[in-house]
Formats: sequence, structure tokens, C-alpha cells
Amino acid sequence: MAVELKGLTKRSENYSQWYNELVVKADLAEQSAVRGCMVIKPYGYAIWEKMQHELDRMFKETGHVNAYFPLLIPKSYFTREAEHVEGFAKECAVVTHYRLKNAEDGSGVIVDPEARLEEEYIIRPTSETIIWSTYKNWIKSYRDLPILCNQWANVMRWEMRTRLFLRTAEFLWQEGHTAHATSEEAEEEAKTMLGVYGDFAENYMAVPVVRGVKSANERFAGALNTYTIEGLMQDGKALQCGTSHFLGQNFAKAFDVQFLDKNNKLDYVWATSWGVSTRLMGALIMTHSDDNGLVLPPKLAPIQVVIVPIYKNEEMLKQIDARVDSIVKNLRAMGISVKYDNADNRRPGFKFADYELKGVPVRLVLGGRDLENGTIEVMRRDTLEKETLALDGIEQKVKDMLDDIQANIYRKALALRESETFKVDTWEQFKEQIEKGGFILAHWDGTTETEERIKEETKATIRCIPLEADEESLQPGKCVYSGKPSTRRVLFARAY
Amino acid sequence: MAVELKGLTKRSENYSQWYNELVVKADLAEQSAVRGCMVIKPYGYAIWEKMQHELDRMFKETGHVNAYFPLLIPKSYFTREAEHVEGFAKECAVVTHYRLKNAEDGSGVIVDPEARLEEEYIIRPTSETIIWSTYKNWIKSYRDLPILCNQWANVMRWEMRTRLFLRTAEFLWQEGHTAHATSEEAEEEAKTMLGVYGDFAENYMAVPVVRGVKSANERFAGALNTYTIEGLMQDGKALQCGTSHFLGQNFAKAFDVQFLDKNNKLDYVWATSWGVSTRLMGALIMTHSDDNGLVLPPKLAPIQVVIVPIYKNEEMLKQIDARVDSIVKNLRAMGISVKYDNADNRRPGFKFADYELKGVPVRLVLGGRDLENGTIEVMRRDTLEKETLALDGIEQKVKDMLDDIQANIYRKALALRESETFKVDTWEQFKEQIEKGGFILAHWDGTTETEERIKEETKATIRCIPLEADEESLQPGKCVYSGKPSTRRVLFARAY
Repeated sequence: MAVELKGLTKRSENYSQWYNELVVKADLAEQSAVRGCMVIKPYGYAIWEKMQHELDRMFKETGHVNAYFPLLIPKSYFTREAEHVEGFAKECAVVTHYRLKNAEDGSGVIVDPEARLEEEYIIRPTSETIIWSTYKNWIKSYRDLPILCNQWANVMRWEMRTRLFLRTAEFLWQEGHTAHATSEEAEEEAKTMLGVYGDFAENYMAVPVVRGVKSANERFAGALNTYTIEGLMQDGKALQCGTSHFLGQNFAKAFDVQFLDKNNKLDYVWATSWGVSTRLMGALIMTHSDDNGLVLPPKLAPIQVVIVPIYKNEEMLKQIDARVDSIVKNLRAMGISVKYDNADNRRPGFKFADYELKGVPVRLVLGGRDLENGTIEVMRRDTLEKETLALDGIEQKVKDMLDDIQANIYRKALALRESETFKVDTWEQFKEQIEKGGFILAHWDGTTETEERIKEETKATIRCIPLEADEESLQPGKCVYSGKPSTRRVLFARAY
Repeated sequence: MAVELKGLTKRSENYSQWYNELVVKADLAEQSAVRGCMVIKPYGYAIWEKMQHELDRMFKETGHVNAYFPLLIPKSYFTREAEHVEGFAKECAVVTHYRLKNAEDGSGVIVDPEARLEEEYIIRPTSETIIWSTYKNWIKSYRDLPILCNQWANVMRWEMRTRLFLRTAEFLWQEGHTAHATSEEAEEEAKTMLGVYGDFAENYMAVPVVRGVKSANERFAGALNTYTIEGLMQDGKALQCGTSHFLGQNFAKAFDVQFLDKNNKLDYVWATSWGVSTRLMGALIMTHSDDNGLVLPPKLAPIQVVIVPIYKNEEMLKQIDARVDSIVKNLRAMGISVKYDNADNRRPGFKFADYELKGVPVRLVLGGRDLENGTIEVMRRDTLEKETLALDGIEQKVKDMLDDIQANIYRKALALRESETFKVDTWEQFKEQIEKGGFILAHWDGTTETEERIKEETKATIRCIPLEADEESLQPGKCVYSGKPSTRRVLFARAY
């Protein structure tokens, strides 16, 4: 797994290529032999595990429990919810047989034609249908509600064009599926989970996001309302980072899930679903990283601090080892993950470049001269600034620096988003700005027709109707495309 | 999700039915609409999560990292390792198409015949082939070794007869796949992981296991050596709880994975793989539980302590609530998971039966009289013993009791296994004993032929050649079936 350090394309040259190379060179993921499916390598998976850990904690703190539902879904289940089948069931992996056999001509192994399934199964692209068919057996009365389940799982969508983490045929995600006695409670749940996602993105990933509601056209297939968090990447394109859906009674009706309410009256159950996926890895990478490689928020970095010794001989290395030993112990006792890299098969310069590429937030370098002077060299990955500090008490300074890096990369990303968000009032301006990238706040007449025309002409989509907006954005105006009346500005961008 | 408390079949009446009912009544899992696939319900999944958490920690402490590999495997990959395809590729889910479409007659959604895959994919029954095709790109020299990867994943095997947790078409597991420069190092790794599994089974699940080596006939398809841990269930049948395989160079050869050793000589890489699955849930349930329901080891119980109030009026409940509040806080501060169930829609008797069914290790009951007397009633689930203790300092007593329960259920299971392990020296005895159940230590001539005859005539298999045995068992003798020379006793049983 030797790291290839040479020649990471610069963002300014080709942002897309920079991203593709970085994912591979930083050992995050790679293409597999299976069309559109990725291998998530140990370093990339360690970041995903940290994300999972925090999200799972946040889900549990908001009253959710985990469960597991089948990977396969009977084909007929998809046809029960009309919009859902249109949105999901078409491009998917279909299981038709359950056995292989040796070819009679000895040429290898073939699908046994006798082992054809009566009804085909679909590998889940999302689990609403299989889960609501299960909830039917779990729910009889209002006493069985709410059900607040989450599932960590793999899903599959047969995407034609794939990119590591951003769009892959198989990806990992969590999907929450909740059942409620009232419309209000379900809508509230959908909003709560949007809040959890927003907090996670901003406070752990250090990715500022706009919280909003999708237009009817961009809703999840089968939802009455889709809430979303939208990030802005460094190239001026938007990335949808997570969605939370108020599903109304659509799935309860499709699977006939009714309950007796407190007045002993039968009603259909109200639903939400919500999910984030390994796509978040793409958001993390594209928001912070630079031409030297990854920049990781300390809260999600598998290695927060790396220590590299510089020595002329074994004797000096032993002295450095001894001094580093206590630093490592102290940092670990403070809950900081630290790696001491005194391997002798790679030179310091190579190590420096490698850990920069991998986005380790803080690097400490200790040499013989430092030992004599009682100093140590500290570099922070976000600014690449180096300084020489006193060895004594270095642990607390490192801890403070990690906090500062976490805050700084968020501020930096937020400043970029603010400088790249534009209010636009004419169609000419709109077309001009969309070529340059960024978020555009513009008036829209509220029709799907206009939305689709804008998309056809500029590839821009309505990312969301923001939940928070300044006074001016909430005033009526005229649609930037049609000139018809608009109640407020909405957020446009080209998106991943 | 109301609990059905009535009528759990007794173990003595029908052990198999007792198990099936218990899994469902205790809210652990249920059958899904997909043939042979289960839904793991929140309470069952919470136990599995605790298992995962401890195992994952143990894997990391022994130097392993997690990664993720594709769900689908190209059909041709299976044919590369001859034994492997015989063992695995036959009964499996085959993906042949990647699209559905609306039927032209409007009858629904059908598989689009135009979207047939050039090469079919198999849903992974195990991942050696896809992983070794990946390792080929990761390994060039001895410096890239060892690779110590683990994956938490779902896998699928098209089983004809399924039982919840014990044998399901889809199940959850972890699979470790390691690559090494020498045969010795790989063999050592396989043994290390057997040790981890054994420790986990005994110290967390409280399930005593026999560590051993499989006979050639019972080896994993493609392995040179399979290590196993074998448990004995209360009905006298064995359950294989986990296996660790020394794969030699078989997969490296099948996928042409070579490396330059320290002398610059090319050689094939040495491999291991090892796994445990949701089958462990079956072992956990069957080892400890009784006619009242689950008995869970405190270390894996989602709820370790439940507190139930008994009150005549709201006023009294308020007083109890206030006193319980500090007990809950103190227990939580000690790292103990506790639930205070003061819900007023279920009567105490119902709650008692429910928490017994669910195997909560310790139950505290606090009534008005107790408050006056400064006492509390404590019941331990393993023995069902009740006693009244002083309220003051109850927290430490509960903690000690949890430790005692953990130790006691292990001792009890170990005593049962010891009393149900028999040395047998004649074929008549063997046939008689196998009908009664238990582990049989008997001499075997070492041939697959004899092993298969014994299986045909008695349904008993060689569970393993134990790694630890008393002196007498290691002496030569005569095969219990053929009378031919035997080097030592091996372990037979009927198995799940």
C-alpha cells in the first residue's frame, strides 16, 4: 500500500481530477472489479467509522434504536407506492436465480436455469417498502407508537456514471424509518433529524450547510416534504449532504398499516425516513482539502497528531524515543489519537508529504537539537504554519491547536460560502453567475415548469427553499426566469 | 410491539419449539417476507451491537483495521479456486439484470430483458475472492505485508431450511482477511484469532467453548486448516461458534498475488480468514435461557438493571420516583445501564414477566413499605432468587451481583458441558450415547471414509480435534468405528 506522492493535480487546473486522484492517493477508496462499486480502504473507512460513531450517538440521544431489515425486496413491493417505483425501482440490481451449476461441457460455472425464482428480488435501493411491510405486524394501537428505528446498511442503485464516494452503485448509509400517530409528530421528527444532520455537518465535519425544504420536483419519491442540508464545495458546486422526509401516510396506505387511536378509531400511520451516506466523505474531502492533500477536521481524523523524529544515529533516536514516549502517553490520556512514526525505511521528507496528503491535523517533529534546546517543531495542516515551541507543556498546546483547527476550517469554509452566495435578479445575471459557480438566491414563480426550464438551460437546480433567510429574501419579488410573482427567494446551484 | 407473554413452550417438552418461540416472544428477531431472511428487531440488534463493540475492540487491540469490499462478486471469480466454488458458489443469490420496466400490458413492473448483465454477479457468501482480487493491487513487496483487514458486512447463502439466527439466507458477520509473508506468520494469525474468539465467547458471552482443529472433511472450502470454537447447547447438540482458517497460498495463487521478499525473490502471499456471525445470538440464547425466557450475561445485556415501582397513588409514586432518581444516577455513573419503568399502562406483574422474558439480569422493586423501611427488593434473573436489601448502598450490591451473575452462568454452562462430555470406547456405546446427546470423546482412525460412515449412521460429526486434552485422550487407541489404530481421541456430536 505504498503511497504515491508525486503529481497530485492542482485544484485550479482540474478540480474534478484533483478529487479523483486525492481519494486514491490518500488511501481512502478505489474502484473495484465490480462495475461502479468501490473498495473503502482502511484509512477511508476509519474516517467513516468516526462519522458513524458520532451520528449513532446522536440518534440514540434523540430516542432512536437500531434494527436490521432484509437486503432483498420482493419486486411486487415496489409497485405498491406509485411514485416510489418510478423514482427507484428502475435502475437496480435484480436477483433472478438462486443457484449456479457446473456447465455440462466443463467450461465452468453457469446459472442453473432450473433455479429461477418465482418472484424476482431487488437489492434494496432504500428500505421503505420492506420496512413498512414489517411495521404492519408491529403496529396495532397508538400504544405501539412511535417506532423510532434506524438501520446501518449497504444499498445499491445501478448508477450509470459513478465517482468514488459521490455516486457509487453500492454505498453505505444509515436510514431512519419512523412511525407516528399524528401528522404533526411525524413532521416534527423529520425536522428534528434535519437538525441532527445539520449539527453533525457543522460541528463534526466542519462543513457549513444550508438547511431547507426541497421543491416538489426534487422531493424523495413518495414523500410529502423533503428537508435537506446543502453544502457548497470549493469549485462552486452544491452537494446534498443529507435528507429527511415527511412521508405522510403514503407508505402506511401502500402496506395497509393502520392503528387504533386513543378514541378507538382506525387511522393510517404517519411516517418519516431520513438518511446520510458515504457521500458525506465526498463533502468532507471537497470542503477542506488543498493542493497538498486532505485537510481533516480533528474531530473526525483517525490520527490527530503524528510525531516524526529526526536523528543522525541510533543513540540519538533512543533519546528521542524516550522523550516522545511521555508525550504520546500524555496526549492519549487527553483522548487524543497520536502516532509516533520512527520507522527507518522512509525518510522524514517522505513522511511529511505522506501525512500532509493524509490530512493529519498536527505534526510534531523532534530532532537532536530540539532535545538540547527543550523545543519541538509544530506544524498545523490547515494553514501549513510551522513554529518552534517549548517541549514542556506541549500537550496542552497541541490540544488547543486541535480545537483551533476544528474552528478555523469551519470559519474558512463558511467565509467561502458567504462570498460565493449571490443574490441575482435578472436572467442574464443568473446565466452569467451560474457559469462561475456558487449559490444563487433568486426569485422563482413556484412552478415545476419554470424549475425544469431553468435546469435545461443552465443545469442549475433548486437546492432548497432555505429555512433561515434574511428579511430581504423573504419579501415578494418577480421570478428570475418567468417574471411572474414570487413569494421569496430560493437557493439555486449546479450540483453533484 | 406488545409482548405476548403466555405460553412459552418448556424446554423439556420441545427444545426446538422453545427456541423458536423465545426468539420471537423476546423481541429478538422474526421471519421477513423474503424467503429465509430475518428482521433483527431493536432488542435483538442491541445485543448484537454489544457483541460487535467488544469484538471490534479486540480486533483493533490485536492490530487489525476495518475496510469495506463490494457486496457483489463476478461469477468468474468463484471458479478460480476449485474447492471454494464447490463449497460456496452453488446455492447463492445471482444478479442477472440491472433494470426493471413497466410491462407493456400495464400489468406492473417486469425485469427488462434488454438489461441483462454480460457476466452475472453473486451476492457474497464470503469475500475471499473479491478481497484477494483487490489485494493483488495492494501487495508488491514484503514491506506491504502484513495486511490485517476486517470487514463488518451482510452475506447471503441460499439455505433451504432456515432458523432464526442459527441458519438464515442473509446474515450479519465480520470476516477478517489477512495477508502474510510467511506460512508461520499466517498460521500464527489464524491461531491468534481463534484465541480472540475463545476469549470473547467465554468472557463476554459466558459460553464455554472447546478450541480445536477441524478434520479435513469439515474444513472451510479452500483452507489448509480450520480452527474452531464449539459450544454445547442445553439439548446436547453442538454449535460451531466461530472459525479461523489458515488458507495457505491457495487464494494468492488463484488471484496471482505475489510479493518480493527480503531477498528480492518472488513468492505467493500467505493468507488467513476468520469470522463470527449473528449465529452467536443463537449460541447465547440456547446456552443460558430457561423456561421463563432469556437469561443474558450482564456484559452483553442492553438493559442490565430494571427498576419497577409499586404504588397505591400518585403521591406515593412521586416519593418513589424521587428516591429512584438517585439510584439511577449512581448506577449510570458506575457504567451500568438501567431502566426505570414507571409507565402506568402495565401492571407490575406484567412488567415482571416481561423483563424476565427479556433476560434483564437484575430487577429492583421499590414500594411504599420499602420506602418507610429503607429497603428494596432485588431479584437476579439467573437463579430467580429474591431478597430484600437495605436501600443505602444498594448500587454497589447491584454491581457485585452483576459480576456474580456473569461468573455464575458461565460456571453453570461449564458444569453442564462437563457432565455432558463422555468418553466412549465401543460402537454400541457411541450409538447409545449420541441419541442422548452431549459431546463424545472417542478414538477415530483419521480417515474421511470412517468419518462419513459415522455421520451416515448416527448424524454425528467430528466437531474438532481439541487443542487442549487430558493425558488419557492423547494416548493411542482403537477407532470406535473401524477398530483401526487411532492416535488420540477427537470430539464428536450432533450439531446445529
